Amino acid sequence: MNIDPLSDGKIIEAWKQNASPWTNAVRAREIESRRLVTDRAILDTVLACRPQTVIDLGCGEGWLALALQQSGIDVTAVDAVPALAFAAKQAGVADTCVMSYEEIAEGQLKLSADMVVCNFSLLGKESVDGLLRAIPTLLKPDGALIVQTLHPLVACGDLPYVDGWRAGSWAGFGPDFSDAPPWYFRTLGTWLELIGTSGLTLRALQEPLDPRTGRPASVVFRAHRTG
Amino acid sequence: MNIDPLSDGKIIEAWKQNASPWTNAVRAREIESRRLVTDRAILDTVLACRPQTVIDLGCGEGWLALALQQSGIDVTAVDAVPALAFAAKQAGVADTCVMSYEEIAEGQLKLSADMVVCNFSLLGKESVDGLLRAIPTLLKPDGALIVQTLHPLVACGDLPYVDGWRAGSWAGFGPDFSDAPPWYFRTLGTWLELIGTSGLTLRALQEPLDPRTGRPASVVFRAHRTG
Repeated sequence: MNIDPLSDGKIIEAWKQNASPWTNAVRAREIESRRLVTDRAILDTVLACRPQTVIDLGCGEGWLALALQQSGIDVTAVDAVPALAFAAKQAGVADTCVMSYEEIAEGQLKLSADMVVCNFSLLGKESVDGLLRAIPTLLKPDGALIVQTLHPLVACGDLPYVDGWRAGSWAGFGPDFSDAPPWYFRTLGTWLELIGTSGLTLRALQEPLDPRTGRPASVVFRAHRTG
Repeated sequence: MNIDPLSDGKIIEAWKQNASPWTNAVRAREIESRRLVTDRAILDTVLACRPQTVIDLGCGEGWLALALQQSGIDVTAVDAVPALAFAAKQAGVADTCVMSYEEIAEGQLKLSADMVVCNFSLLGKESVDGLLRAIPTLLKPDGALIVQTLHPLVACGDLPYVDGWRAGSWAGFGPDFSDAPPWYFRTLGTWLELIGTSGLTLRALQEPLDPRTGRPASVVFRAHRTG
């Protein structure tokens, strides 16, 4: 079966293929921007809200879920890629679950938490649009969604600043990686519109600085259930 | 008296000095980014909200107030620089007023409108912080503040992406201009924090594209009275 190289399906296929080298790279702390800036940024943002229960969507190999669990938080870690959810379980995350964003959008994740966190895990187009619309159903009243993602103005590069699929790249990663996942570029305006039309109200936007460049390493949105 | 070259006071002094060439430049449509993108962006955003009453803060020579008035909107145009408010009056704006942001922050502008608009007029530090906090008192329930300003990620240039005073420049303007006003750079995160702590809730963020660069020519915030 041929999967469109710029599609939600291709993202999952590519992550399935790279689950093992990715797990190794994160555990060896090989990704400099994470080590210098973005790991701390997401941890600080989550912990500042003092949630008792967190759903980590797109948990990957589980480092964030584990860190939150070690802070006394009741975490459910979810990933569509079985090998990644399994890696999280092996690392010590007590509650892991294999489920796609499409399944969550259909209402299959029957949980209600103080917080949903998505750390560099909102990479697709329709899959992300559908997931966002389902977030309010996963949150308690005034519960918060925290999203860390690429900063649009920085990640845009030399391409036009308009929504669209972008080819992936493993540049800077080792020889074990192949078949980089594509990602769907959204402008800041589109992100805020998506948050607003999903029944969420943006309460904070942070731009953690990369000390190497003086530019934002990422953007972190905090949005709460509206009304 | 020596005024600090990077201060709120210096901004007003510089605009007083350049009121006449500025009025000429805007009326001759000499500023390409305005002609190509940002004039249309602010007009469309305001008109889409269908306000009956608008307060134009930092109205300058009055083109926007006049255009809104010609669309049947009841506009009050306010500027701290007497020569600019006078130019607006001469152009045909029915209701103009000379008042500083500090005076508005003190409650001297006793109006209540459907909308407050600030089009490239929020350039200072304390003056802008104080003005924003007073905006809810100028708005009817669910009234909106519309701000068009420089896009932080684009306007940042090669300087660090941190809040701070920046020297002004009249590069690209004619020989009649002198003594460029400084401006206070705010990150996107700081803008959103300022809006939120001023009793306003951000409902939309637009990034009108400059067709020459493919990058945002500005950012437009729409925020409503909270609660």
